[in-house]
Amino acid sequence: MSTPTSLATERPRLVHTAEELRAGVQAARVAGRRIGLVPTMGALHEGHLSLVRAAQAACGLTVVTVFVNPTQFGPQEDFDKYPRTLASDVDALAACRADLVFAPSREEMYPAGCSTCVEPPAVARRWEGECRPGHFRGVATVVLKLFNLAQADVAFFGQKDYQQAAVIRQMAQDLNVPVEIRVCPTVREPDGLAMSSRNRYLSADERRQALAISRSLRWADQLAAGGERRAAKLAEAMQGVLAEAQIRQIDYVAVVDPDTLEPVSELAGPAIALIAAKVGTTRLIDNWRIERT
Amino acid sequence: MSTPTSLATERPRLVHTAEELRAGVQAARVAGRRIGLVPTMGALHEGHLSLVRAAQAACGLTVVTVFVNPTQFGPQEDFDKYPRTLASDVDALAACRADLVFAPSREEMYPAGCSTCVEPPAVARRWEGECRPGHFRGVATVVLKLFNLAQADVAFFGQKDYQQAAVIRQMAQDLNVPVEIRVCPTVREPDGLAMSSRNRYLSADERRQALAISRSLRWADQLAAGGERRAAKLAEAMQGVLAEAQIRQIDYVAVVDPDTLEPVSELAGPAIALIAAKVGTTRLIDNWRIERT
Repeated sequence: MSTPTSLATERPRLVHTAEELRAGVQAARVAGRRIGLVPTMGALHEGHLSLVRAAQAACGLTVVTVFVNPTQFGPQEDFDKYPRTLASDVDALAACRADLVFAPSREEMYPAGCSTCVEPPAVARRWEGECRPGHFRGVATVVLKLFNLAQADVAFFGQKDYQQAAVIRQMAQDLNVPVEIRVCPTVREPDGLAMSSRNRYLSADERRQALAISRSLRWADQLAAGGERRAAKLAEAMQGVLAEAQIRQIDYVAVVDPDTLEPVSELAGPAIALIAAKVGTTRLIDNWRIERT
Repeated sequence: MSTPTSLATERPRLVHTAEELRAGVQAARVAGRRIGLVPTMGALHEGHLSLVRAAQAACGLTVVTVFVNPTQFGPQEDFDKYPRTLASDVDALAACRADLVFAPSREEMYPAGCSTCVEPPAVARRWEGECRPGHFRGVATVVLKLFNLAQADVAFFGQKDYQQAAVIRQMAQDLNVPVEIRVCPTVREPDGLAMSSRNRYLSADERRQALAISRSLRWADQLAAGGERRAAKLAEAMQGVLAEAQIRQIDYVAVVDPDTLEPVSELAGPAIALIAAKVGTTRLIDNWRIERT
């Protein structure tokens, strides 16, 4: 019997319980191989896969987790409709040569009586923290659980969720978790839209409209490159690009310090431009690192 | 030159920084030796030392931490006057053959910007949690940090702090920390007083008065052995013993479920009798496991 070439790559091992995951990483741990972890909510796109490739290049064992974590969604958010595509996720992970895929049930992650959580650091307060109360508590808690379950030496996150990466880095430092956090560049569609599992919610018209988000970030970057150092002027310019594209449900447009995420008034060094806005009913976020010239 | 025989035992290595601790456990980890952790606030007594001996018997490397953790003390509590006796603690640990003593500064444990904490599980709500707001948040956070720093495989706690052990066990389970929690029996003075670093605050009169605490617990145990199953009757009897000894500042006297620490009304299985009371200005706690006959 012949098998199609697309299936010729070795499949990652797919496990569903904490016990299987622990057993799966144990041999690597004993052998002293570095364990790389890529925590995801599935619905994988090239952004996720770039993290898996980074893990594969840096570590002896690559663990990818696929879990739509209920505790990081607000009651009005898209938990129920969030895409679940495990079979094709595993296909994509096979092509990237991931070793182990952990796709637990809700009960496996939060058994009855589970009530401890991580209260995230100060960098979680603003922006997503304000717009999505409880979001970062859910993120910090599940990510710490996954660090512990996978016994990760290195964990990979995308810059697309800039504040999330900052929260996790600070959480790991504050709690002395022996894991290195690596943040990999945002992967974009050819036209500039940051890849996101939520992009699939967009209609064709909304998809075009959504381009204004990355366009406004690039515009702020160009203004800064041209000498504009006033954060208010950069934010105003970004707002202008969004308004032109009829994007009116804006959660925030901000220029912030790369570490504290506090707003800056002048570009005294590198800064991050942040945007969160709804296009139709889909909430999108994006960011751009702006260097002072 | 001759050395006194009391110094002939090998001294544990005393380190003060997270980096030194990590380096100190690294070799044991690579060699696959089990790392045992005994977290303490110093002012060591036989209760602590029994934990160290248990660790020494079960593990390849015994780490004892000595840190008076400020975040678990309330503003009106005894943080400033809590006894600090590191030199004699290290002498005692040498006699118990501890391998490594970690005595960090406040800044080493909580550097500027450190702001993540662990929100403890439901079992932390009542009793000490109610009397000492924030206490278990501080305990859960520092203990998780110590687990991570020491890379502990097994950690040892005393039954004397019954609720603390329950909180830590549930926290470790909820956050999937790969550590086994062992709870060792309360060590008592020959007259029954549970050993505590705070006993040294007691005057001779208060020391005698304090005996009523363990006496009342034993009395409840005897009543239960005699067939009394009504928790209210047991609590009343304990209150009576305390009142007779003029102990009037009682935080709680309770008969609770061993796992949930919720009050029970009837002894349907084993239960824990809990007492917290002030003798003079010294707050003492004690507990006793009561089996249903």
